Amino acid sequence: MECDLLIEGGAILTLDARWRVFDPGYLAVKGSRIVDVGPLPVPPTLSAAKVLDASQCLVMPGYVNTHTHIAMSPFRGAAEDMPDRLTRFIFPLEKAMVRPELVYDASLFTIAEMVRSGTTCFADMYYFEEEVAHAAADSGMRALVGETVVDFAAPDCSAPYQGIDRAIQLAESWKGHPLIKACIAPHAPYTVDEGHLAQIASLAEQHDIPIMMHVAEMDFEHARFAPEHGSVLRYLDRTGILSPRLIATHMLFLDDADIELAAKRRVKVAHCPVSNAKSGRPICPAWRLAYAGAAVGLGTDGPLSGNTMDLQTVVSLYPKLQKTREHRRDIVSAREALWTATQGGARVLGLEDTIGSLEAGKEADIQIVEINDFNCLPVHDWYATAVYALQAQNVRDVLIAGRFLLQNRHLTFAAEEELKARLLLHAQRSREMIAALQTSMVDR
Amino acid sequence: MECDLLIEGGAILTLDARWRVFDPGYLAVKGSRIVDVGPLPVPPTLSAAKVLDASQCLVMPGYVNTHTHIAMSPFRGAAEDMPDRLTRFIFPLEKAMVRPELVYDASLFTIAEMVRSGTTCFADMYYFEEEVAHAAADSGMRALVGETVVDFAAPDCSAPYQGIDRAIQLAESWKGHPLIKACIAPHAPYTVDEGHLAQIASLAEQHDIPIMMHVAEMDFEHARFAPEHGSVLRYLDRTGILSPRLIATHMLFLDDADIELAAKRRVKVAHCPVSNAKSGRPICPAWRLAYAGAAVGLGTDGPLSGNTMDLQTVVSLYPKLQKTREHRRDIVSAREALWTATQGGARVLGLEDTIGSLEAGKEADIQIVEINDFNCLPVHDWYATAVYALQAQNVRDVLIAGRFLLQNRHLTFAAEEELKARLLLHAQRSREMIAALQTSMVDR
Repeated sequence: MECDLLIEGGAILTLDARWRVFDPGYLAVKGSRIVDVGPLPVPPTLSAAKVLDASQCLVMPGYVNTHTHIAMSPFRGAAEDMPDRLTRFIFPLEKAMVRPELVYDASLFTIAEMVRSGTTCFADMYYFEEEVAHAAADSGMRALVGETVVDFAAPDCSAPYQGIDRAIQLAESWKGHPLIKACIAPHAPYTVDEGHLAQIASLAEQHDIPIMMHVAEMDFEHARFAPEHGSVLRYLDRTGILSPRLIATHMLFLDDADIELAAKRRVKVAHCPVSNAKSGRPICPAWRLAYAGAAVGLGTDGPLSGNTMDLQTVVSLYPKLQKTREHRRDIVSAREALWTATQGGARVLGLEDTIGSLEAGKEADIQIVEINDFNCLPVHDWYATAVYALQAQNVRDVLIAGRFLLQNRHLTFAAEEELKARLLLHAQRSREMIAALQTSMVDR
Repeated sequence: MECDLLIEGGAILTLDARWRVFDPGYLAVKGSRIVDVGPLPVPPTLSAAKVLDASQCLVMPGYVNTHTHIAMSPFRGAAEDMPDRLTRFIFPLEKAMVRPELVYDASLFTIAEMVRSGTTCFADMYYFEEEVAHAAADSGMRALVGETVVDFAAPDCSAPYQGIDRAIQLAESWKGHPLIKACIAPHAPYTVDEGHLAQIASLAEQHDIPIMMHVAEMDFEHARFAPEHGSVLRYLDRTGILSPRLIATHMLFLDDADIELAAKRRVKVAHCPVSNAKSGRPICPAWRLAYAGAAVGLGTDGPLSGNTMDLQTVVSLYPKLQKTREHRRDIVSAREALWTATQGGARVLGLEDTIGSLEAGKEADIQIVEINDFNCLPVHDWYATAVYALQAQNVRDVLIAGRFLLQNRHLTFAAEEELKARLLLHAQRSREMIAALQTSMVDR
């Protein structure tokens, strides 16, 4: 067979059902797909137009970032360490500053940051989400894009709940795109009322799209729903929104009954440990959710929350916080953590047949990571190196659907300096409003 | 005044008592010291043999890593996620493999990793500690080196407690060295008995050296001392070892009375959040200790524990875990976190008059970090960028005592490939023993 690209040498961590590692191995790509993977030597029947040497590298599935707001990068680092930042700072800032041009430029910038740290797919929730979709499609990034629904006039909606129509339009216009899928994104149980949640659940069913929502993240949210309903999750169950379509993000205030309920309804969980910790929130019972049978993936959250958009940082923190929460060193092994960031994420987004592992027939979404550096050596255990030692700087090449987005540490889809210049322009334009809001927060 | 080096442009974060930031600023170095720092323009009276452009950079004090076992790098990534790893794996592995040549080579390798991530001083505890001292002195790194004392035959001692004599010899032989200071390092309250702790306290006084010890780290340690004495710390107080000389590492199992006691005895705390989390241990009440008045610094712990030797990762996690522990977003601000990693660390090591801030008269221990990268932009708040966004890859130059150890991302003190080759040789030699020990752990 003649293929387009042959990756040769290095340790290939397939993350397949049998945990196969080929060291040294080869992987063949034809068009957008993986057509063969195995141990060296390359079978004589296989030839390729192009050969890429991956010796002294790990070849792994790209990371799947299950929860982002990538267009928020112009605001990164503002109003840190302040209480009630969402309502006092972020909502008014967005209302004033978020425009289509900012969303497109900032998205393209953040896609660059994500690609450079090994991410090949992300699931996003924001305003003017069609601009996020265009930035992803233009760069060659895989994405699930969700237009936000809220009960107030949003940056892209003059009236409450107009996001519902925008979300359905988005889903219609990207139907059949090879890289981009749409979902509908009700912001949270405290910003979308019960009737609209039920309506969204039924629209999602009708249009066959996922739902992405922040669930059980805030203490005030828990305080609002727990007295009457027992918990946020039990309240949500009344609306019909708890289903395999739901990508529930955060999931912090859960009791044992909630964990069972989530598993029973086959809810998907987007776990954002870096973001949650930085906000001083409880640690999500992610290991317990996974143990109960829920699909769990990892996310960075937005650039204001993390503040890194680098999923490697999240993969490394995930087992540490679960071990801390449960006071057990033996849970969430390095191998399990890496699986959660790849196959786990693919399951959360409903893409497990397409991406998440390196197997013939799957899309060629691949990261090639150099391990011959001071922070990685020596390698006694591939998974321990991948999870506990790697840093974004080690990522050398990234392919999505068989196409290089990062090649020998250089972006292929845009000029780096131009991406930075446009991001800085939007940051500069936001500076006055950021300063005014910060002052008002300190004054109170 | 004629100086040796002038660093010009960029934002100079002095971390001095007035939190001065000069943006853009300059910093002048003469010999091993900072002689002037201020806002641009450079005063006309100041001239320099060499000028370094730091525009689009942060200029900050180098990180002070208050707790390491740097020679353990050949074993990094082995026996992950296994319970009782210290007694079942690490102690027997060290007994079999740790020799002077390994300690020297591995130390030099790990110093390279630390320098590349902005660290300019470390405090170490191990066996054959004189080799660690030589590696630091040979590379130009600043270090506090502590020979380990244990109640069993160690890799460098044929009988229990011989480490005491070795520690005193070490202190004598490095007296007056400009970069290297020695301390004595009783391993832990469960490996050094009460009488020897009292002896060590009085020897440290006599020789005027610090003491470094793992304190209140293990659940079995807490279980052993709490029933009779109330806590590990209250037990230790009987021995006279709780004093401003003591660098108490970890400090996890503490109640309110212990926090007060630590502050009252002016004990120094080396807080290792990444290592503790990875081991599934409780979160150290570091914010409460600092609030009570104890000096708190940050450490990576050894390469098997972290697994990174990159203090940037630790600085970033420190506020997140404290916010998580206390359920408060507003504690441990980014500025406070950066202070803890620099000035805080200097205080812990008793070096606050020498290093930890960028002020005239202090030693020129400096990191210059590029911020014009996708993970850093934009900058709305210098401290938020430094703590939450920077990664090791952003470090461009590192000076210690006015001498470049990293220049434009290249090590000046050793050939990178040779450092890696020697590390890999020791890792290779340990592989059989590692495999045998891992198998025995799984079998049980």
